[in-house]
Amino acid sequence: MENPSSNIEKVQEDCYNEWMSLQARRMTELKQALSNGEKDDAKLRDLARTALRDFEDYAGKRSKHSRRYSSNYYAPTWNTCLENALLWIGGCRPSSFIRLIYAMCGSQTEHRFSNFLRNDNIDDLSMALGETHGETGGEDSMSDLTAEQLFKINELHLKTVQAENKLSKQSASLQEDTADIPMAMAAFYKEEIGETDVVVERALDKHEEDMAGLLVEADKLRLTTMTKIVEILTAVQAVDFLLAGKKLHLAMHEWGRCREHRRVEAYGGGDSGGEVAGE
Amino acid sequence: MENPSSNIEKVQEDCYNEWMSLQARRMTELKQALSNGEKDDAKLRDLARTALRDFEDYAGKRSKHSRRYSSNYYAPTWNTCLENALLWIGGCRPSSFIRLIYAMCGSQTEHRFSNFLRNDNIDDLSMALGETHGETGGEDSMSDLTAEQLFKINELHLKTVQAENKLSKQSASLQEDTADIPMAMAAFYKEEIGETDVVVERALDKHEEDMAGLLVEADKLRLTTMTKIVEILTAVQAVDFLLAGKKLHLAMHEWGRCREHRRVEAYGGGDSGGEVAGE
Repeated sequence: MENPSSNIEKVQEDCYNEWMSLQARRMTELKQALSNGEKDDAKLRDLARTALRDFEDYAGKRSKHSRRYSSNYYAPTWNTCLENALLWIGGCRPSSFIRLIYAMCGSQTEHRFSNFLRNDNIDDLSMALGETHGETGGEDSMSDLTAEQLFKINELHLKTVQAENKLSKQSASLQEDTADIPMAMAAFYKEEIGETDVVVERALDKHEEDMAGLLVEADKLRLTTMTKIVEILTAVQAVDFLLAGKKLHLAMHEWGRCREHRRVEAYGGGDSGGEVAGE
Repeated sequence: MENPSSNIEKVQEDCYNEWMSLQARRMTELKQALSNGEKDDAKLRDLARTALRDFEDYAGKRSKHSRRYSSNYYAPTWNTCLENALLWIGGCRPSSFIRLIYAMCGSQTEHRFSNFLRNDNIDDLSMALGETHGETGGEDSMSDLTAEQLFKINELHLKTVQAENKLSKQSASLQEDTADIPMAMAAFYKEEIGETDVVVERALDKHEEDMAGLLVEADKLRLTTMTKIVEILTAVQAVDFLLAGKKLHLAMHEWGRCREHRRVEAYGGGDSGGEVAGE
């Protein structure tokens, strides 16, 4: 994968592009399994395990490539600015996985009931009540969440938010360290701005190493949260959830690209209010 | 300032470049005042007020340019990746201003005493005890911080961290909202990845507006924290603090640039371990 003439950022970007292509491929596989009405739990569980292993592999590669070069991962140039504004320690917030489940549960329950009401068909009643999966191919699976599952998910949510807060605090502390000795004082006492020396370089290397360590911890939390969610869900629900996560990630990248493209085209300027023509 | 042919990102970047040039100019003025041994408190207070007003003006411009285009400010392309990894809601953490004061206080006290010990000169004793400023031109002013000042700074620190945490929570909540209805469900139900519609566009516009609002709040907190610090400090200390802040900001930008440049040159690749040749 490493290209001898490339720099570390290129290596990191190649790794990301591979990951995005893999996600798109897995998305098709998950979709296929659901639309075929795949009922074999073992097969669906296999697909879910593969998705988790994929992320674990990707996190391992990021860790290897980040060591003293972790800054790139905190606002990657290969992301759109929309995605970068959503970043939490180099990726998505683990608690957003749980938010996604709640969103799916709400939306799919509504979807199922509105189908039932529209069809005005008593045969659909059992489906509306979540007794069968029918031809939706698992797409409504989250409306079948049981009270026990919801309780476990809620418990996981609380724990995840706590773990997130702990890492956020560590991140804040690492950020603040740069306003301390030795960096702040090197900046203060050097004659020329940006002049560097071995003390500054070592401090910056140490800072990037610490940030790389934090990235590993955040990726671990993302993976364990995903794994626990998959354990709580049924096989169909797990595949449904993983599919939704991949779709959202891929869509956000595309939406970000569209918006950036449109802004460059649309901004005719001339208005000091910063308004954009046509929007 | 707006260039008719430019896009919004260009406008934002121009605004940032103006701000950095202004900081460099102000840095020279502050340095000059200190090295001239400026004793006129009113003049020094004027310089401090100007620095605060500069930031207020800049924040006003950012607010105007961000409204529905705030994403750029959360990981600006004009920053180095080192700086972006340090970003908190589009800028530095207000608590890092206070950390900088503590760093200056510690380092300058040490500096003063080591000068005294090296010179082995009893005449320097009064200086070592902070009774005069001498020819350091205010550069050691932070070692004169009184117990009362330190108490007030500590109080401000606690309040600032609380306010930061409140904004961090809002930021987390806005980030999580994107994994909710309508965006997550639009991503889920659309046939084609990245397909958009008026609902998605409205939700993304709303998201950027909310993030722009958060940026305004964070800038307000940065300004009020700086203002309160300046009020607690003596005129010389205030100028010393503002100078150190500007130096650190400008130095971090240069250090980030140097490191990026060096990485591109140094990364010879060939080592799958992701190590960099020569480092």
